[in-house]
Amino acid sequence: MQHIRVIGLDADDTLWHNETIFEDVHEKYRTLLARYHDATTVDRTLLATERRNLELYGYGIKGFTLSSIETAIELTKGQISATEIRTLLELGRAMLAHPVELLEGVAPTVAALARSHRLILITKGDLRDQQRKLAKSGLAAHFELIEIVTEKDPATYRKILARHGIAPGEFLMVGNSLKSDILPALALGAAAAHIPYPLLWAADHTTEAPNAPGRFFELAKFADLLALVGESPGRQS
Amino acid sequence: MQHIRVIGLDADDTLWHNETIFEDVHEKYRTLLARYHDATTVDRTLLATERRNLELYGYGIKGFTLSSIETAIELTKGQISATEIRTLLELGRAMLAHPVELLEGVAPTVAALARSHRLILITKGDLRDQQRKLAKSGLAAHFELIEIVTEKDPATYRKILARHGIAPGEFLMVGNSLKSDILPALALGAAAAHIPYPLLWAADHTTEAPNAPGRFFELAKFADLLALVGESPGRQS
Repeated sequence: MQHIRVIGLDADDTLWHNETIFEDVHEKYRTLLARYHDATTVDRTLLATERRNLELYGYGIKGFTLSSIETAIELTKGQISATEIRTLLELGRAMLAHPVELLEGVAPTVAALARSHRLILITKGDLRDQQRKLAKSGLAAHFELIEIVTEKDPATYRKILARHGIAPGEFLMVGNSLKSDILPALALGAAAAHIPYPLLWAADHTTEAPNAPGRFFELAKFADLLALVGESPGRQS
Repeated sequence: MQHIRVIGLDADDTLWHNETIFEDVHEKYRTLLARYHDATTVDRTLLATERRNLELYGYGIKGFTLSSIETAIELTKGQISATEIRTLLELGRAMLAHPVELLEGVAPTVAALARSHRLILITKGDLRDQQRKLAKSGLAAHFELIEIVTEKDPATYRKILARHGIAPGEFLMVGNSLKSDILPALALGAAAAHIPYPLLWAADHTTEAPNAPGRFFELAKFADLLALVGESPGRQS
């Protein structure tokens, strides 16, 4: 992969843990509503609310918190107490204040990649929340560009590459989501490396499979990127 | 002002109405809580909650909605009903779906300025919400750059100008907020034009007065920008 000069990196569940934090809150949410509904109904209704609100709220924790309150009122037919709703607000704030925990191998690998490649962080979600996590991550200095976007589709990637004068043939996108990170990058003719995370938000599922021989790579762990782009952690550019 | 080549434009209450929409929701909010507290207490407590949450939530309607729910629970000592909280969620969604209403003279003035100057939209708030408003405004094509930021301080402006190779001496910032639009731009050595809006969010108040002779201008209406930068609406570049 000597032709790759620019690497795009997804953030949540690629550089640092995210879905585990949501899963922990989901568990508390199911417990809060357990005397009204079973866990499956709670999960399904919350996801439906999130999808319905996505157009207005976008991605991120604030929208999730609002959807969780709406769903709780709906599922309890208005019986949920203000005190329980306050608990949901507190869960949301705790998520926003959560420490950033890097995935294994991320810190040295990003540092090594930054010595030989231009790195762009490409993530969706709340502006302030993503900037907060990047600041806490200790990785910010390695990125030449930060792109926080509202949607990760081919048009978004095309705009980012065009704005910074990057040809698709020299670009590799890396992330945990086939739908948001891999398929749209491949659609532009760029390369893409998929590094699955144990959990995936249901709204990010896709049944489509990548079909781009020589441009699509499935990696087991983040540090495998070094071998893919032909770098070793100690090499200086 | 022949030396001005790039104009930064604030969005909310500079290009389109925003605070009037919030004020309308505030009025409904006071009515909802009127049997618990007088309007002054409601306003003061909500503002205190918003300020306390600003670090975590940032600016925008989603954070406002979360703060309004938190305040309602606090002010009613948990007596507010789930149905009333649902009303607050609905008010928030109605704000997000609100039509974009341009201020008087904005459409032709922005079009005229775009023929002779590079225009940058510089706004804070929710990413998706600001993009939605810009798309609805019909003004998007006139802007060379869109910068949606989490804070409007001198560091933010310095970063934007540096990133795009703009010298402070050729930059004019335009907006309705002395605190967010005018003072930080003047601090960098840029010029600034203040166009007051009849309403100003309390958290955006400042007692500091601009002191930059020859670089600070107070305008009565948006169209006055044309005379300031030496353009007429009909002139082609």
